[in-house]
Amino acid sequence: MAAVRNLLFIMCDQLRYDYLSCMGHPTLKTPHIDALAGRGVLFRNAFCASAVCGPSRMSFYTGRSMRSHGSTWNGAPLPIDELTLGDYLRPLGLKVAVAGKLHFTPDVAGMTRLGLDPASPDTLLLRQCGFEPYDLYEGHVRPPDDSAYMRYLKARYPGDDPWSDHVVGAEGPDGQALDGWLIRNAHLPARVAEPDSETAYTTDRAMAFIREQGDKPWCLHLSYIKPHWPYLAPAPYHAMYPPETHLPIARQIHETRDAHPVVAAYRKNDEGSFEREDVATNAKIAYMGLIKQLDDHIGRLTRFLAEAGRLDDTMIVFTSDHGDFLGDHWLGEKEIFYEQAVRIPLIVVDPDPFGQRGIVDDRLVEAIDVLPTLVEAVGGKVPAHIVEGTSLLPHLRGGDVAAKDAVFSELDYGFRRARQVLGRQPGECQGMMVRTERWKYVEWPGYAPQLFDLENDPGEYQDLGADPAKARIRREMKDRLFDWMTTRKLRARLTDAEVEARTDTHRARGIHIGIW
Amino acid sequence: MAAVRNLLFIMCDQLRYDYLSCMGHPTLKTPHIDALAGRGVLFRNAFCASAVCGPSRMSFYTGRSMRSHGSTWNGAPLPIDELTLGDYLRPLGLKVAVAGKLHFTPDVAGMTRLGLDPASPDTLLLRQCGFEPYDLYEGHVRPPDDSAYMRYLKARYPGDDPWSDHVVGAEGPDGQALDGWLIRNAHLPARVAEPDSETAYTTDRAMAFIREQGDKPWCLHLSYIKPHWPYLAPAPYHAMYPPETHLPIARQIHETRDAHPVVAAYRKNDEGSFEREDVATNAKIAYMGLIKQLDDHIGRLTRFLAEAGRLDDTMIVFTSDHGDFLGDHWLGEKEIFYEQAVRIPLIVVDPDPFGQRGIVDDRLVEAIDVLPTLVEAVGGKVPAHIVEGTSLLPHLRGGDVAAKDAVFSELDYGFRRARQVLGRQPGECQGMMVRTERWKYVEWPGYAPQLFDLENDPGEYQDLGADPAKARIRREMKDRLFDWMTTRKLRARLTDAEVEARTDTHRARGIHIGIW
Repeated sequence: MAAVRNLLFIMCDQLRYDYLSCMGHPTLKTPHIDALAGRGVLFRNAFCASAVCGPSRMSFYTGRSMRSHGSTWNGAPLPIDELTLGDYLRPLGLKVAVAGKLHFTPDVAGMTRLGLDPASPDTLLLRQCGFEPYDLYEGHVRPPDDSAYMRYLKARYPGDDPWSDHVVGAEGPDGQALDGWLIRNAHLPARVAEPDSETAYTTDRAMAFIREQGDKPWCLHLSYIKPHWPYLAPAPYHAMYPPETHLPIARQIHETRDAHPVVAAYRKNDEGSFEREDVATNAKIAYMGLIKQLDDHIGRLTRFLAEAGRLDDTMIVFTSDHGDFLGDHWLGEKEIFYEQAVRIPLIVVDPDPFGQRGIVDDRLVEAIDVLPTLVEAVGGKVPAHIVEGTSLLPHLRGGDVAAKDAVFSELDYGFRRARQVLGRQPGECQGMMVRTERWKYVEWPGYAPQLFDLENDPGEYQDLGADPAKARIRREMKDRLFDWMTTRKLRARLTDAEVEARTDTHRARGIHIGIW
Repeated sequence: MAAVRNLLFIMCDQLRYDYLSCMGHPTLKTPHIDALAGRGVLFRNAFCASAVCGPSRMSFYTGRSMRSHGSTWNGAPLPIDELTLGDYLRPLGLKVAVAGKLHFTPDVAGMTRLGLDPASPDTLLLRQCGFEPYDLYEGHVRPPDDSAYMRYLKARYPGDDPWSDHVVGAEGPDGQALDGWLIRNAHLPARVAEPDSETAYTTDRAMAFIREQGDKPWCLHLSYIKPHWPYLAPAPYHAMYPPETHLPIARQIHETRDAHPVVAAYRKNDEGSFEREDVATNAKIAYMGLIKQLDDHIGRLTRFLAEAGRLDDTMIVFTSDHGDFLGDHWLGEKEIFYEQAVRIPLIVVDPDPFGQRGIVDDRLVEAIDVLPTLVEAVGGKVPAHIVEGTSLLPHLRGGDVAAKDAVFSELDYGFRRARQVLGRQPGECQGMMVRTERWKYVEWPGYAPQLFDLENDPGEYQDLGADPAKARIRREMKDRLFDWMTTRKLRARLTDAEVEARTDTHRARGIHIGIW
């Protein structure tokens, strides 16, 4: 083991915190991901900044909460002057690249206003959130036909759109092609060969990148699109998890009565179909298979790193941007603030001689903590007046840790049918969560809050948002949100040291105030 | 009277709301400013976004609160991607320029990161907050020797630094030169001839600009440095307001006992000297003279506009960035949230045929409302997802007005000795005010709040911040601050219309979620 020189920042998409065997899943065995945990620290209480791909990732990439970076939804551009991981790592000599998904939307209007050409090579990094696009692949999000993966597929499969026909094409029992977007087909195999699937391809590309770097330092963001929908796994993974291997759906009938207005409105989104048991079950067959496949590729990648000698000088972060309801709470997808959506898996392997091995850390940590961890791991320092996360290095190396007593998450549901169901305007659709070890409080401006007692009701079935006996707790939690809002980093253009140096200096500049 | 074609946006610096005869000052007669009020609307309850020059102005120029634009102090750069008045007005065909002071600090680091040359003519507008620098003059803030005014002085007065020798130089009783920075000399005349003084020069330059434009539409920000310190007026204004013409100092002895910690710390800044009556009195002699001088030049300017035919097509805004304590509450300067600091004069003359004349409007309005007013007056529209202020046009034209029920102001005192006195770090020195018609509440993170009952204690002498009987009011006011923070404009890169157009559109893009 040696000092950290490289950073492998692995993100899965929509991988729920409890769908790993190291996180307690009883039937879904993930030995390779578990092995990462065995070599590092498993954070069992990690939370994303927003349970939506885009804003969650922008918080990972900036180390700032959603309300600070301003990219509140998929496709909402990140303001051009937000600093991202590459801005911090590149000056330290690392090549910073991505293989897989970013879900980043460039601030073209901002570039144009400043006279920057959004089509010029000069603005490449601004267009890719500060990552060199080694092999960018956004899955379902953008037309897939401009990606290297699409070209790869076209060289191997017939037709104009082999992605739709094979990756998202399901093979029926009689060999017929069926639409893999439809959940009724989620138990069928994808028509793509496993080695050509998204997870396999992206792993290949990651290994190619690492191989190409030789001994030069790098940060690779290996960003898998899976197990995000479309729920469809290639053989043999499609058939590994029949319904009897599934966790029971976590929901109670009373949740559908007197539901919180925003939760009720979310059940009217398309994914409200997950209240049907067959939808949830069929989705889980594919979902679990996709995770098993991911685990096998993490195993392949780990062996590759071992053989290349890179396990000794590479910090590995394994996480996800958010979770998936899979029918729990009568919900599908993610976004609202139940644990299934906002809690994320987080494992960090630190090859530093002081890096701890096989530790389980149950303290509250946040997605915004990852950026400062990565930067500090390679000797950098993040500006305290910009970055809102806290480095996890003390967690990793057994140092004194001032544990967080609360974590926070946000949502802008203005882009969702739920907004229209509720009759609200864009810009008035916020949700804000604060969660301590004991309590989870969600502020929904315009509506009553939600409150859950995680000690007595870990399943979050009893909303105490209107319970008169809990008024004091709600008050306390709302005040925590207040304090949190006031401590977001507002003064983004002067460091604390510059403020210190400028404090009370007017006399030295010949400015006399109030001198008789 | 005709449609508004030009915009004359007059700002004074540190002009307290009640130091105009139209605002009730009993001895300081300001007939020319009063005449503006007579031709327009006098807003008697207007408040700045921060009672500090830089952040207050950035709120005027962006239409956004301090926590949204991020320039929290003098010299704290405005992030490069904040849109300012010029961004909204220039596309409408107006020439947008400044004569006088901006107190703007460009985001050089932001420019450099984006490959923009901070010395190139291409970035001129970015360096000047979107204003063409027709005649930029920052007074005491920057070395005055690169300004046109300094060259003007050098052509007329001897020495290397005629500004210090004459504009800020006082003439003693025996003709000796004395330091005009010192308040003991504030009752003496400046050694500059009145027609060469800052106020006269800036007015001349404004008239020159307007003359040069002919019939082309323009927005001129006429931004006077006065009556900001150094407190020194040219003859004959230095001698017009002897102590017997002054308002009594508004303070009570008990305010110095059990003072709020932040207020007490502010009294330890240099301007704490204003607790001395002679300091306050001498300052007021000059302060009132400087305002009288301003008023005379507003008269000169108005006559010029009338002769040029510009009164008929020019909207005039007259305001100030903040006030001045002048010894009230045992304080000097401004910054903390008493009315003397946060309340500002605001007069708008609207030449539109529907523009009301001689109206007094006592509803609560804010500095951030000025930008949308100016833009809408010339037919523009401000983006609702960025601009937080509300156009005052309905106030001006007798339309239906949904009056604000509260106004807000902020402070970052991290740059002040008060911070060190309190032993706090930069980044943890916020103050936030919410004020309704009846109550003023100030949240000081780390300390008890302040609360004043403006109905029963309009002088703000009785701090009810710890009064057990007022717990419910404090709660209510803090919740208003909470709501206000949540409604700041976070999603700065997508319009509300774009959100509306993108709501629930995934199916149209071939994305199927939760479909069986």
